[in-house]
Amino acid sequence: MGANEKLLACFEEAPGAYVSGERLSRELGVSRTAVWKRIRRLEEEGYVFESVPRLGYKLVRGPDKYRMDELMKRFSGTAFGKSVKLYDVVESTQNAAHEALLAGAPEGALVLAEGQSAGRGRFGRVWFSPPGKGIYVSFLLKPNVPLAVAPQMTLLISVALCRAIRKETGANATIKWPNDILIDGRKVCGILVETMLEADVVKAMIAGVGITANVRRDELPEELRDRVTSLLEATGAPVSREAIVGSFFEQLEWLYDAYRKEGFGPVRTLWEALTSTLHGRVRVATPQGVSEGVAEGITEEGALLVRDDEGRVHTMYSGDLTAPISR
Amino acid sequence: MGANEKLLACFEEAPGAYVSGERLSRELGVSRTAVWKRIRRLEEEGYVFESVPRLGYKLVRGPDKYRMDELMKRFSGTAFGKSVKLYDVVESTQNAAHEALLAGAPEGALVLAEGQSAGRGRFGRVWFSPPGKGIYVSFLLKPNVPLAVAPQMTLLISVALCRAIRKETGANATIKWPNDILIDGRKVCGILVETMLEADVVKAMIAGVGITANVRRDELPEELRDRVTSLLEATGAPVSREAIVGSFFEQLEWLYDAYRKEGFGPVRTLWEALTSTLHGRVRVATPQGVSEGVAEGITEEGALLVRDDEGRVHTMYSGDLTAPISR
Repeated sequence: MGANEKLLACFEEAPGAYVSGERLSRELGVSRTAVWKRIRRLEEEGYVFESVPRLGYKLVRGPDKYRMDELMKRFSGTAFGKSVKLYDVVESTQNAAHEALLAGAPEGALVLAEGQSAGRGRFGRVWFSPPGKGIYVSFLLKPNVPLAVAPQMTLLISVALCRAIRKETGANATIKWPNDILIDGRKVCGILVETMLEADVVKAMIAGVGITANVRRDELPEELRDRVTSLLEATGAPVSREAIVGSFFEQLEWLYDAYRKEGFGPVRTLWEALTSTLHGRVRVATPQGVSEGVAEGITEEGALLVRDDEGRVHTMYSGDLTAPISR
Repeated sequence: MGANEKLLACFEEAPGAYVSGERLSRELGVSRTAVWKRIRRLEEEGYVFESVPRLGYKLVRGPDKYRMDELMKRFSGTAFGKSVKLYDVVESTQNAAHEALLAGAPEGALVLAEGQSAGRGRFGRVWFSPPGKGIYVSFLLKPNVPLAVAPQMTLLISVALCRAIRKETGANATIKWPNDILIDGRKVCGILVETMLEADVVKAMIAGVGITANVRRDELPEELRDRVTSLLEATGAPVSREAIVGSFFEQLEWLYDAYRKEGFGPVRTLWEALTSTLHGRVRVATPQGVSEGVAEGITEEGALLVRDDEGRVHTMYSGDLTAPISR
């Protein structure tokens, strides 16, 4: 038994009771300062303790972990529940899904993690991924579509995600083109879609979703606080990660099914109803340069149309949408 | 020391000499039949023995292995020599290169293997990959080009490969669009190019090259013998894998450099001079259907133009070029 396990065992013997520092010090054979340091370290891993002078410490709760039975119940009968891998802390669920793809994983295979040590956002950015407090999931799609319509898939995922958030939390979530979900103008989810081509044929898409779920404002890195919020902050209550994940994949399956039967039409209609990007003024940065103007609509392929001040219409397949936005 | 090492050690004591079966049986503490079985197993791994009644066995040569010093000498000063991984038998160099990419490997990183247990060709086909007898190499390119011109890269690689084969073997190698090198109408190399996109931005290309080098005709699987040849068969002599690999990456670097400075022009000119596909009748199968007609040229993006019998021109970005071909 490691030192942490020994310490936790003292609390598990009498759930809800206070255990004195003196006793912990004796059982572990270390000083009371060392006990305090170990408690602090467990707190960093997500354990919550209450400490009362003279009484000692009480374990309030362990770190948040997915309840797999709960999750699998929600997945039952869905295409996305057939191959589920749950990691504790993984470098990045996106890389883990890539590896699953190389190992021959089928469409729908998904990878969840409690936390990520090197979570990836778009353009090589780091995705803030504290264990137990966010949703980090990547999954494989093999849509058998021409490359030209691949951008449709990002819009499809964003619609499913936005609908799931609205349904589970009641929050007024909107889609910011191309990859984000906002609440009150601040980002709460990001989507990363990578495509693997053989020559010009889409072999697979590896899609990752990050949701800032049960993160308190003071737990966010300072540089994110202006632009990022969490479901906890937006709704005032912690959310069930199982419910959000289950709802997202339910929406995704329903929409993906409609997409395969009826094409992009239904996705487009829903996307237009849920986005905060259209009809406002936007500025889009791409590797080819920056365009500014009014977001007029999306094309059949899922690209954004931006009319600049000279009246020229630019077709944007992806990019960084920065200020100013409106609506 | 394992049984194989013990056996080989007996031969290494006196290079070039015959070692009697009796002595091998005594040294290994097994029957002479067991000695014979072990010799057979080593032969399957590429060792070559001579066996003479009464005299015993002579080790003629070990399995072909890359001479790393020789290889690295040829790589010195090239961009592709900076990160070289040589595996013994790997599942697929292409998958190993994918994994290197996920781990952050830079442009030019390359993966070689003596053999592959699940070598991949296009469309999920298996690539025949006997250890020591072929060249199996995958490498990373990060060309920073728009997706539309990605097909150019396959043509660029095929030009470098065709030039290297011609230079090192003197054989009249030609390029068959899009991914093969032929000698005397039979395939001797294949190229597999996979592209990793983030949204519509090319993050990396993972390119794999397979060369049937020192394979005798009777070592080829029967179903391949009509369509496939080897450098050994085509030239009548075994080739130095180090020389071919070194020459290919030298050509590739030179051409890639020209491409980045001057664009697709130089590649296109060389490709047109080396191909056996143009101006002949072709039949191209793609996921979208089959086109038949005359191969008229390639576009600025590297796509093949096929004029059908009704005079319509089809732009093919990739596909399976089947019979009939001419020239």
